[in-house]
Amino acid sequence: MKLEASLTADNINQKLLSIEYAVRGPILQRAQQIERELQKGVPKPFPRVVRANIGDCHALGQKPFTFIRQVLALAACPEMASAAVPEDVQQRVREILEDCTQGSVGAYSPSGGLALVRRRVAEFLAARDGVPASADDIHLGSGASDVIKAVLTMFAEQVDGKPSAVMIPVPQYPLFSGTLSELGLVRADYQLDEERAWALQPSELERAHAAASQHARVRAIVVINPGNPTGQVLTRENIEEVIKFAYQHDLFIMADEVYQENIVSKPFHSFKKVMHEMGGPYAGMELASFVTCSKGWAAECGLRAGFVELLRLAPRVLAAFRAARAVMQCPSVLGQCVLDCVMKRPAPGEPSYAQFAAELAAVRRVLAERTATAYHTFNSIPGYFCNPIDGSMFAYPRVDIPERAQEAARDLGLSPDEFYCLRLLEETGVCVIPGTGFGQRAGTFHFRTTILHPRDEFQHMMDCFRRFHLDFLEKYS
Amino acid sequence: MKLEASLTADNINQKLLSIEYAVRGPILQRAQQIERELQKGVPKPFPRVVRANIGDCHALGQKPFTFIRQVLALAACPEMASAAVPEDVQQRVREILEDCTQGSVGAYSPSGGLALVRRRVAEFLAARDGVPASADDIHLGSGASDVIKAVLTMFAEQVDGKPSAVMIPVPQYPLFSGTLSELGLVRADYQLDEERAWALQPSELERAHAAASQHARVRAIVVINPGNPTGQVLTRENIEEVIKFAYQHDLFIMADEVYQENIVSKPFHSFKKVMHEMGGPYAGMELASFVTCSKGWAAECGLRAGFVELLRLAPRVLAAFRAARAVMQCPSVLGQCVLDCVMKRPAPGEPSYAQFAAELAAVRRVLAERTATAYHTFNSIPGYFCNPIDGSMFAYPRVDIPERAQEAARDLGLSPDEFYCLRLLEETGVCVIPGTGFGQRAGTFHFRTTILHPRDEFQHMMDCFRRFHLDFLEKYS
Repeated sequence: MKLEASLTADNINQKLLSIEYAVRGPILQRAQQIERELQKGVPKPFPRVVRANIGDCHALGQKPFTFIRQVLALAACPEMASAAVPEDVQQRVREILEDCTQGSVGAYSPSGGLALVRRRVAEFLAARDGVPASADDIHLGSGASDVIKAVLTMFAEQVDGKPSAVMIPVPQYPLFSGTLSELGLVRADYQLDEERAWALQPSELERAHAAASQHARVRAIVVINPGNPTGQVLTRENIEEVIKFAYQHDLFIMADEVYQENIVSKPFHSFKKVMHEMGGPYAGMELASFVTCSKGWAAECGLRAGFVELLRLAPRVLAAFRAARAVMQCPSVLGQCVLDCVMKRPAPGEPSYAQFAAELAAVRRVLAERTATAYHTFNSIPGYFCNPIDGSMFAYPRVDIPERAQEAARDLGLSPDEFYCLRLLEETGVCVIPGTGFGQRAGTFHFRTTILHPRDEFQHMMDCFRRFHLDFLEKYS
Repeated sequence: MKLEASLTADNINQKLLSIEYAVRGPILQRAQQIERELQKGVPKPFPRVVRANIGDCHALGQKPFTFIRQVLALAACPEMASAAVPEDVQQRVREILEDCTQGSVGAYSPSGGLALVRRRVAEFLAARDGVPASADDIHLGSGASDVIKAVLTMFAEQVDGKPSAVMIPVPQYPLFSGTLSELGLVRADYQLDEERAWALQPSELERAHAAASQHARVRAIVVINPGNPTGQVLTRENIEEVIKFAYQHDLFIMADEVYQENIVSKPFHSFKKVMHEMGGPYAGMELASFVTCSKGWAAECGLRAGFVELLRLAPRVLAAFRAARAVMQCPSVLGQCVLDCVMKRPAPGEPSYAQFAAELAAVRRVLAERTATAYHTFNSIPGYFCNPIDGSMFAYPRVDIPERAQEAARDLGLSPDEFYCLRLLEETGVCVIPGTGFGQRAGTFHFRTTILHPRDEFQHMMDCFRRFHLDFLEKYS
């Protein structure tokens, strides 16, 4: 036996050691362990674990859209076509396979994605914004994570001897913090204002920029709209403020807009549209905007499809981006088929429309109901506070944790919110992610929960939060 | 309009600027342009472009395997099951969906892949090698490229103030050079011995290691077996030599074994098996071995599925690898279905077996015929030399280029092999990749061509090579 490994914690790429991704972190591992214990018959005060750790609608019982799945099936196996399959599905598959080399989804596509699908994306974006869009600006990836990482990779770790920093919100989605760690980029946190419905205050952006600029050069700003984990939808005015701020400080804007189709009532304004309408120098700024099929109504997380619209990049910068992408060949062609269906849905009059519309209405109804219930329930629990949830698929309530509980947490080497979520899991089987994994203002405690469970399970989960919290208060007050 | 972009060639991550991936590089772009010209009716001395730039079997006309595609279709849309679908397909889909959360391929899988599929991979590897394999050592990815990059990411750019180097063969597959560029790792080239059927000489490994060690610390060695672009299969003895060399120099072994199922007659020895059989300290060394569904008999490039078997990593190193992978969520679940089918094929007696066996025999026959034809044809052209092609799906012939042609190339700012391939493309429509994209000993010139075209097209291509080369010699001798 060899005594020592050649790759050790001391000589490994140290940037990997600081990656944390709470959504699939220790609390999920404990939940999985509990699931195995339950299977073995270990007695617990609950019959099963309720997973609310990750934004995965199908895992919460949302049924796949029939149109998408029929297209996928026929694209994989055109021989399965029969009279039972609607004609618009068959037509869609013919169009897609026409664009696949030799008509097989098993052939590589161009590394940016099939030309047809990129064209469909451009048409969708042009219709969404009333602003022209070009297929040449669309780059497909294996989900938004993949293209977000690819865009962040464009930033040098240092410029002129100063480390590069990227502004990200707090709370944020830990893909950003994790990827910045891996890439050796500095994170410059700006706080969302919980007292003002998680708004993005220009004064706070200035403060964060000034603070980071003391030791780093700030290169880019990430905005998550609708918010994850916070669920707010930015106003048009707020977006304008961000754009002006970015312009003044010469920042590259990265707009994580993956929840744009998961909004209950407010209007969604894309950064692209607002920049275009502002005109002047703002309409000439670079922009990266991200969309994914893992979110929105389709929520096909497992099929890994998304894209970035990259606007107004310098030609050599774009060429470098493309070269790096080409090495990884191409994203899943079946994933690209999903994106095609999401960008061009069945239209009124087409054979698949009625079923599609019914399925879409059901998804929208669940989102509207759950956001309302979560908002009201959380605000009715003593010591809980929850902002209105405009969209996304999460709630991020703030929880007062008694001082004695905070001490108990410290004794265990845990943060108070970690302790709270762990006790919640052990006592009720509900698995949510502590605010520490997303970030929160010092001295405040939160957790993120997904809210798209079936009604009964959701109500059960809400009851668990209330009952657990009251017991917790009793124990630690 | 904003005058200057915030992200420029000067302040971008400079590592991206040196990425080159010839397989999708300038020659392909020119081929695509010619295809558009042909469509517009621009007269050319050939009716269509023959693409031989990339190892993409479906693009060359290989038909997908019925079993795989039926499984994919039903996994995407279980409602399409009917009496016409063989029972073993339906059974396989039930097994896979059983392992998907809520039975949907649209739910995220664990980031390393579905437990079922990782188990199937382990069973395949154990049967292949007669050596135990564990599902815990298997990490699925979006093709081998994805996991190769993930493993290379584990190496620090510097250790103790010295840059880290990774040994790669010359010729190599440019995924390696491109990814090393992006990650800021030094490449330490070792030459394969063309005069000895592309063998890997220990003396050359020592030379390359010593040369690189003058300015860098060599951390790992990449071996591509069967070779890409070279097509040789290493002998067991040669693999033992590499392992001993790696042991002596404390190198991490990365075995790119993606073509292990594309071998005509020689036996394949995995690094894992040879290390195990050598015993002693060698059986305790770390190893990363890569396999993909894009190659092998399935050749489902577009569906992006592959895996790495990671053996004997230090626990904290493995934890860091897992954390970095988790941030990217998971590979395509439909891709994982393909991998499941490849790892556990229809067995004799099962309903799908007869058709599967016939399809497999056809694929094997094409490989055997084309490798033989390519070998004989290339060696029959004056000034061409081609080693025996044991496997892969490529030929990498050496071509004598007359001095006058080399001058003509230099006048155009091209290397002689680039000039040769570009002329070949312009005059015959055949698109192959110059040796410069893979590496070659100074003063020698090669190109890589895929060889799995349909028989008529393949013969046409071979005729083009001969005719073009004779004309070329006449023109430049």
